[in-house]
Amino acid sequence: MQIFDILVVHAHILTINADFTEYRDGYVGVKGNRITAIGNSSDLIDYQAKRTIDAKGKILMPGLVNTHTHVPMTIFRGVADDIVLHDWLMKYIFPLEKQCVTEEFVLTGARLAMLEMLSTGTTCFNDMYYFSDKIGQAATEIGMRGIISEGLVDFQAPSFKDPDAGFKYNDFLIEKYKNHSLISVGVASHAPYTCAPELLERTEALAQKHNLTHHIHIAETEWEFNKFWDEHACSPVQYLDNLGIISNRTIAAHSIWLTDEDLHIFKNQNVGVAHNPECNMKISSGVARIPEMYQAGIKIGLGTDGPASNNDMDMFGEMRSMAFLHKFVSGNPTVIPARQALRIATMGGAEVLNKEKEIGSVEIGKRADFIIVNTDTFSGTPIFDPYSALVYSIGSHNVTDTFVNGVHVYQNRLFPFSDVEKIKADARTLAILVAQKLK
Amino acid sequence: MQIFDILVVHAHILTINADFTEYRDGYVGVKGNRITAIGNSSDLIDYQAKRTIDAKGKILMPGLVNTHTHVPMTIFRGVADDIVLHDWLMKYIFPLEKQCVTEEFVLTGARLAMLEMLSTGTTCFNDMYYFSDKIGQAATEIGMRGIISEGLVDFQAPSFKDPDAGFKYNDFLIEKYKNHSLISVGVASHAPYTCAPELLERTEALAQKHNLTHHIHIAETEWEFNKFWDEHACSPVQYLDNLGIISNRTIAAHSIWLTDEDLHIFKNQNVGVAHNPECNMKISSGVARIPEMYQAGIKIGLGTDGPASNNDMDMFGEMRSMAFLHKFVSGNPTVIPARQALRIATMGGAEVLNKEKEIGSVEIGKRADFIIVNTDTFSGTPIFDPYSALVYSIGSHNVTDTFVNGVHVYQNRLFPFSDVEKIKADARTLAILVAQKLK
Repeated sequence: MQIFDILVVHAHILTINADFTEYRDGYVGVKGNRITAIGNSSDLIDYQAKRTIDAKGKILMPGLVNTHTHVPMTIFRGVADDIVLHDWLMKYIFPLEKQCVTEEFVLTGARLAMLEMLSTGTTCFNDMYYFSDKIGQAATEIGMRGIISEGLVDFQAPSFKDPDAGFKYNDFLIEKYKNHSLISVGVASHAPYTCAPELLERTEALAQKHNLTHHIHIAETEWEFNKFWDEHACSPVQYLDNLGIISNRTIAAHSIWLTDEDLHIFKNQNVGVAHNPECNMKISSGVARIPEMYQAGIKIGLGTDGPASNNDMDMFGEMRSMAFLHKFVSGNPTVIPARQALRIATMGGAEVLNKEKEIGSVEIGKRADFIIVNTDTFSGTPIFDPYSALVYSIGSHNVTDTFVNGVHVYQNRLFPFSDVEKIKADARTLAILVAQKLK
Repeated sequence: MQIFDILVVHAHILTINADFTEYRDGYVGVKGNRITAIGNSSDLIDYQAKRTIDAKGKILMPGLVNTHTHVPMTIFRGVADDIVLHDWLMKYIFPLEKQCVTEEFVLTGARLAMLEMLSTGTTCFNDMYYFSDKIGQAATEIGMRGIISEGLVDFQAPSFKDPDAGFKYNDFLIEKYKNHSLISVGVASHAPYTCAPELLERTEALAQKHNLTHHIHIAETEWEFNKFWDEHACSPVQYLDNLGIISNRTIAAHSIWLTDEDLHIFKNQNVGVAHNPECNMKISSGVARIPEMYQAGIKIGLGTDGPASNNDMDMFGEMRSMAFLHKFVSGNPTVIPARQALRIATMGGAEVLNKEKEIGSVEIGKRADFIIVNTDTFSGTPIFDPYSALVYSIGSHNVTDTFVNGVHVYQNRLFPFSDVEKIKADARTLAILVAQKLK
């Protein structure tokens, strides 16, 4: 007899496994934090379940993996839109971070982001910010999987006065979260133009020592691309590769301004790319060569980037925008079909985070990180193909239930374990302080 | 004493009038089908209201105007994605329309579209399809404003065997809907490449006779653009202008492949452009020169196009995609700021439909077509600027109430006057028949 802690029955299951196996009327059994059974509901006999959830008429699929975030920046959502990148950074974001970002800011902003992500179907995030311990705390409280990393730079940051202090913070994070069921720690160097070679190498040495992911913004702007050619006679990617920073642990956010040789480096080193289509469009940074990367077999995941530049954390929206953007740019509507978009947002993201054995698909043995999506809606009627409906018309607001690590954190559109109203109120209070600094 | 049929109080009102006047805690009074009072809630004294609605903490704004639709195509939503335009049209849409489009199909598809549009904040649409009387019927039943027009072509269509029969149908529509409170009738010629010059001229003559809008697809694809240069040594716009088709009644859907001279023609003739950013990206048709048109003072509205090519009718999504697309294409993040996007989606659309005196803004004397949007959400927290929040982060699913012509058709996310479940069920039944034709 099979024993389950949670059993979901009568769902239309999209597993996103290697064969895209579907169960039109399927069940998923969970024991502890893992998926222990999947099949057709009609084959379900001789079992006991502590809780059974009927998902008739709904889709069950893997949780989405957001591969590039700065979650506390929810508090800066919409603070500076429709302006050029240099002004956005220098006149708004950097000064505001200096004045506003405290442990309390990070904790509140991260809590709000967890609620937003979980309620829109994302179960795992990969973050780079300051006071990351507070992000780990927020994710642990609310029940979300993630990688946290302290964004090292050569200048003073809200959480460290110099890189040495930043590395001390890293050591603290690595020790605190070892063997944590939800939180992994990674390292992060902000970007090749904000970190000296010594800092980049020291960060990568730490990643190697502990086998951690190394999260870094690479080749986001034409300005950065030209700067490295001018100063080093090579691309940002080649510069980093020459320093020994590029590896299968690299999570390369943006990766827009890449040469053919850079693509070869990414492929040969098995780099993971965190693609952020909406942020890239909104800030006019350019477009990453995603269809070519996909063709080449480079690991690709999707990300929202921070809410100060997007302005939401909606991965369903990113899927749709990714498909639209690359069809438009290539002039080819067959590029990034719906299945591929859904795979990039789930298994692709898991691969980028080197977590593909644990998450990214609904398969026996994997962590129980999955979502249920209501399709009984106007824009979900009719459905000829469920992948197409999920990517092009249903939308994140139809996610009704989210499970992370075997815990049913979002239940029929409610967070039973979180004080949602207090988190929103705290965020608004902090935003008033931010608005005062703007004056 | 002021007497109101409906009074909304304590709303954050964005009027989208010429000065973008806002009331942070405002009221809107409605008598009959018109807005009769607007002001600060604290100034509201000596009045009687049949119904009072408290919109505390919510935004009240004009309903969105969808300037280019084929509403019955909800039934074809997602029937053929991720394929090239020629195959999409020739292998799927045209054959399916021939086999499936009946009066019942049009009525059911239109009903579903009305529910989708009203629940996502659109109060007025401009349609081109077949059996348009059934679209008028659906809009009247459910309570939506719109322009209907029978899409004339030179070949047989579902609703007419030849153009003569199409014109008869037009006469019937014009007569039936004269003086209708919600429905206006326009004329439509499908496109310059599907209508012979005689048909285009005859359609325009009818528009002139009755002073009707003339809805037409213009310069949607590079193929069309090249075809006219090859065959007529001019652009599609110049071809139509030479025929006398271009005027201030023209609603030019897409208008992507336009020369500088074409822009001058549009400006001089006061043509209205129906811009469809998501459809254009998804089908890889190219990008309309919207920032230049805006600069030149050309009338611009937004549209979703049909749900077979988009795949939803979400005008909030179109606003966001429009802003993203043109920032990306221009390399300039200041292009189409949030206020401009919101104006295009409301007053801009009203101007394109030549209804700017009746709808498009919340002003005294205008029709009571407005919506209420909940901002107490995760992605609506915090708000530094309401325009930015509406365009970039809140999303259409936070529309809670929709008023059209003084009627509160969508109330706290419900349609009290419509059988929503039956409409969805009818649509699914028709979609099963469509799926059978696909085999």
